[in-house]
Amino acid sequence: MDRPLILVCNDDGYKARGIRELASIAKRYGDVVLVAPTTGQSGMSHAVTLTNPIRLKQITIDGVISAYACTGTPADCIKIALNQILDRKPDLIVSGINHGSNASVSLFYSGTVAAAIEGCLNGIPAIAFSVDDHSPDADMRLAAQYAGPVIENVLQHGLPAATCLNVNFPPIAPEECRGIRVCRQTMGVWKEEFQKGTDPHGRDYYWLTGAFSNDEPDGEDTDEWAMRNNFGAIVPIHIDVTDYQGLESIRKWKF
Amino acid sequence: MDRPLILVCNDDGYKARGIRELASIAKRYGDVVLVAPTTGQSGMSHAVTLTNPIRLKQITIDGVISAYACTGTPADCIKIALNQILDRKPDLIVSGINHGSNASVSLFYSGTVAAAIEGCLNGIPAIAFSVDDHSPDADMRLAAQYAGPVIENVLQHGLPAATCLNVNFPPIAPEECRGIRVCRQTMGVWKEEFQKGTDPHGRDYYWLTGAFSNDEPDGEDTDEWAMRNNFGAIVPIHIDVTDYQGLESIRKWKF
Repeated sequence: MDRPLILVCNDDGYKARGIRELASIAKRYGDVVLVAPTTGQSGMSHAVTLTNPIRLKQITIDGVISAYACTGTPADCIKIALNQILDRKPDLIVSGINHGSNASVSLFYSGTVAAAIEGCLNGIPAIAFSVDDHSPDADMRLAAQYAGPVIENVLQHGLPAATCLNVNFPPIAPEECRGIRVCRQTMGVWKEEFQKGTDPHGRDYYWLTGAFSNDEPDGEDTDEWAMRNNFGAIVPIHIDVTDYQGLESIRKWKF
Repeated sequence: MDRPLILVCNDDGYKARGIRELASIAKRYGDVVLVAPTTGQSGMSHAVTLTNPIRLKQITIDGVISAYACTGTPADCIKIALNQILDRKPDLIVSGINHGSNASVSLFYSGTVAAAIEGCLNGIPAIAFSVDDHSPDADMRLAAQYAGPVIENVLQHGLPAATCLNVNFPPIAPEECRGIRVCRQTMGVWKEEFQKGTDPHGRDYYWLTGAFSNDEPDGEDTDEWAMRNNFGAIVPIHIDVTDYQGLESIRKWKF
C-alpha cells in the first residue's frame, strides 16, 4: 500500500523551527510535501491573494519529497499545493507547529489554523499545531511528543465530516505536562490596545498590541483551561458555522 | 433616549458604492460612525496588521457623524474604532454592502464578514451585507430595500449570544425578488485554478482564480439555494466553532 501523502504548511514561513520539527515528525507517517510561506504570515487568517500573482520557489528540506516556498498566504499555500504541485489529494494536512497560541478565539486570526480549515474545505483531514511561545527558538519538545500520536490517530480514525483539529500546547517541558485533553473553544476576546506614536515625519501611527481576556476562566472543558493547567488541548473545529439554535428565533422576524 | 450608535465598515474601501449606500441606510436608525479601509481589502478574511503600524485619516461623508479611512484590514478598522475612535460601545456594527457574494464558505475569505465577526467577538450585534455582483457599480437597490428592515429587527430583538448575521442578496432587481429567508450555510468549496504565466522578466507566476462548487445544490434551507431562487439569504454565524458532536468520538482516542 502507498504511504500516506502528507502536506505540511504553516504561517511562520518555511524557515521557522516549528515547521521543520513538524515535517520531521510527519515523515515518520508518510511521504511529506511541504509548501509554506516565504515570509512570516502571522495574523493573516484565511486571507487569499487576489490582486497580485504569487510565486513558488523549490527548496530542499531533509527527508521531505518536495518543498516549496510560496510568496502567498497560508491559505494560498494550500490552494496552490492542491492545484499545481500535488498529483493526488493528500491524505492529511498538518500546519504548524506555530510559534504562539492559537487557542480560543485566536483561531480566527491564525494563518496556521486557516491552512487546516482550507484543507478541511477541500475534504482533507487537517490538523493545526501551535505552542504558546512566540519566540523563534520556542521549545517544541512537548508539541513534538504529542504531534506524532495525534497524526497517527487522525490517519487511523479519520475526522468527522467538515471538522479539522486545532491543537495547542502550553510552553512547558514534557515532564511538566499532565496529558492532552479534547476541549471546546474558550469564549474570550482580545482586549486590544493600540500603541499610538508619531513617526519621524511627524505623522501619527497606531500599532496593534493587546492581551487575551478569557470570558470563562472556570470552564474546565475549554482549551484555555487545559493550557493553563499544563495539558495540551485539542479542539475540533467545524466549518459549518451556522448558529442552528439561532435560526428559529430569527425566522420569526418580520421584514 | 440616545439614538443607537452604529459603526459602519466594509472591505471594499471607504470609497465603494456599497458602503455609501449602507451608511445612508444606517443613519435612518442611529448616529453613524464610519471606519473603513483606505483601499480594497477583498479576500483579507480576519487578517490583522501586526508587523506594521496603521494610520487613520479623517474624511467627510454626508450624514455621518465622523468617518475615517484606515490603512489596515477590516478587522483592524473595527479594533481601532472600538479602541481609539468611539467613546462608547456601539449598539450595532454593519459591514458592507460588499460587492460580491459572501454566501456559503466564501464567508471564510471575506473581510466584510470578518468585520462583523470582530464586532461579535466584542459582544456587539453585527451584520454583514453583500450582493452577488463584483462590479464597482453593482445594483444595490435590493440590498438597500432589505438592509433597513434587517437593521431594525436586530436593534429591536438583538441577536443570540455569540452570533452575527451574514446577509447576501442575488444580483437581481427588487421586483424580481421573492423575499428574504433565514438559512443555514451551504457546504461547498472553491475549485481553485491558478492562471499560470510568465512575467516580462521570465519568471513564472500563479494568479488565483476559480469557481464556487456547491456540494448541496438541492438544500432548500441553504443560502446558495435561496440566492439562486431569487431570495435574499440571512445566515446566523456562530463564533464558537467547536464541533460538539465530534468531541465524544475524538475523546476515545488513545495518545
